[in-house]
Amino acid sequence: MAETAPKRQKTSKSTPYHLVYWPGLPGRGEHVRLVLEEAGAEYTDTAHTEGGMGEVLSYIQGKQPPVDDVANLPVCAPPILRHGELVINQTPNIVLYIGKREGLVGDAEDEDGMWRVNALVLTALDGLSNEVHDCHHPIATGLYYEDQKEESLRRSADYVKNRLPKFLGYFQRVLEAKASGDGPWLYGGNLTVADLVLFQCLDGVKYMFPKAMAKLQREGKHDRVFALYDAVKERPRIKAYLESKRRQKYGMGIYRYYEELDLEG
Amino acid sequence: MAETAPKRQKTSKSTPYHLVYWPGLPGRGEHVRLVLEEAGAEYTDTAHTEGGMGEVLSYIQGKQPPVDDVANLPVCAPPILRHGELVINQTPNIVLYIGKREGLVGDAEDEDGMWRVNALVLTALDGLSNEVHDCHHPIATGLYYEDQKEESLRRSADYVKNRLPKFLGYFQRVLEAKASGDGPWLYGGNLTVADLVLFQCLDGVKYMFPKAMAKLQREGKHDRVFALYDAVKERPRIKAYLESKRRQKYGMGIYRYYEELDLEG
Repeated sequence: MAETAPKRQKTSKSTPYHLVYWPGLPGRGEHVRLVLEEAGAEYTDTAHTEGGMGEVLSYIQGKQPPVDDVANLPVCAPPILRHGELVINQTPNIVLYIGKREGLVGDAEDEDGMWRVNALVLTALDGLSNEVHDCHHPIATGLYYEDQKEESLRRSADYVKNRLPKFLGYFQRVLEAKASGDGPWLYGGNLTVADLVLFQCLDGVKYMFPKAMAKLQREGKHDRVFALYDAVKERPRIKAYLESKRRQKYGMGIYRYYEELDLEG
Repeated sequence: MAETAPKRQKTSKSTPYHLVYWPGLPGRGEHVRLVLEEAGAEYTDTAHTEGGMGEVLSYIQGKQPPVDDVANLPVCAPPILRHGELVINQTPNIVLYIGKREGLVGDAEDEDGMWRVNALVLTALDGLSNEVHDCHHPIATGLYYEDQKEESLRRSADYVKNRLPKFLGYFQRVLEAKASGDGPWLYGGNLTVADLVLFQCLDGVKYMFPKAMAKLQREGKHDRVFALYDAVKERPRIKAYLESKRRQKYGMGIYRYYEELDLEG
């Protein structure tokens, strides 16, 4: 047992982060990037490093981490984070890991905060990312959109009519609750990773369903959600990032624009 | 700010857990139950308490936690955990919270273990729970299965052919990796919440797609995954739980049996 038991891997405050994600689109990696940017953390990103695509593939194909790594397990899909000797994947997991280290999961005295923040992150990703992806791939991720267009239209119509208002309504209720604190943020009066994740989700949904989002904004029932979106966008580090070349354009990822799916709801 | 800032809520080692989940079906609450049972933790469960359904509804309707609770936010959906003064939701969040407290996220010396375990939990839930739910509800959760039967058949055929072997293959690779340690478990030679979550996922998929799972087991490529399933089932506390009345039958939840979807793959 002692031979194979994982050892704790030491990382110091200054150990840089390394993000492994498909070059060429924001995708799920974007949640990780926004957290790293807001934290002002030192990081590298396969989106912008030579051989980045090959590196992603080496993880997918199980060449990294090597099968005899005593501490790290194979990863199923990107985004992947390498931090010192630690290799982990899964978007909400990476976001929570970095958020906890960088002071972005609530007040330092509030030991339970990270669990409330994690619940918000998971809910935003469920309702405003995973469900949105399935609006253009309701039948199979392995098929082209063109092979599931009818089903996509049916699913998207339900999404913008029922699911999207449900999730925006939920986050509006959170922002109205006392525990969200003063100011524009979701929890405890401080910016957390949940605000950054929700921002990216809203940005993606605005790209994919601009008519539905414009209508919801006009109706005014989710004013605090749209105010949070604006507040994140104006954070100095986030603003600089969004204007930089590091911010990639939407394309064939989770959030896609298809005119026929751009319904008002 | 001081007035609304959340305070740390003290819970002691002996504070019992309270699970809030729909009575009448295992559902996502089952992952939480298996963790509590394996831990030998003291807990109550709205599945078996008088007025349980009303209590679930009070959370869904936003009556609990009250809007002026200074620490807890509204929750979007069950399962919900109340532990002392803390209220949180989201299955993987609750599982990680309890797992960390109860020593089920890896060796106590291994501070990074919880992040590896959390990645496994999230991957099992993505691929073997959420995707399975969408096999009978590919278009809209708000519609009946009968209103999306054709699409369900198409999605299920893809699932058993492509997705199910992909995820079983992933967990087989994890079990073959050195970092999984000796014995039947996924990480570090110790039983963790990831093993319990994967067990419940496999049990549900066996219920929904018995032909596909029997074929995959016969083929023998995922022998370690099926061995893990058997090993969890034989844990004394899990075995006692599964034989008790606390274990509810599958029905109209995530895992459902429809003969027409029971494909071999």
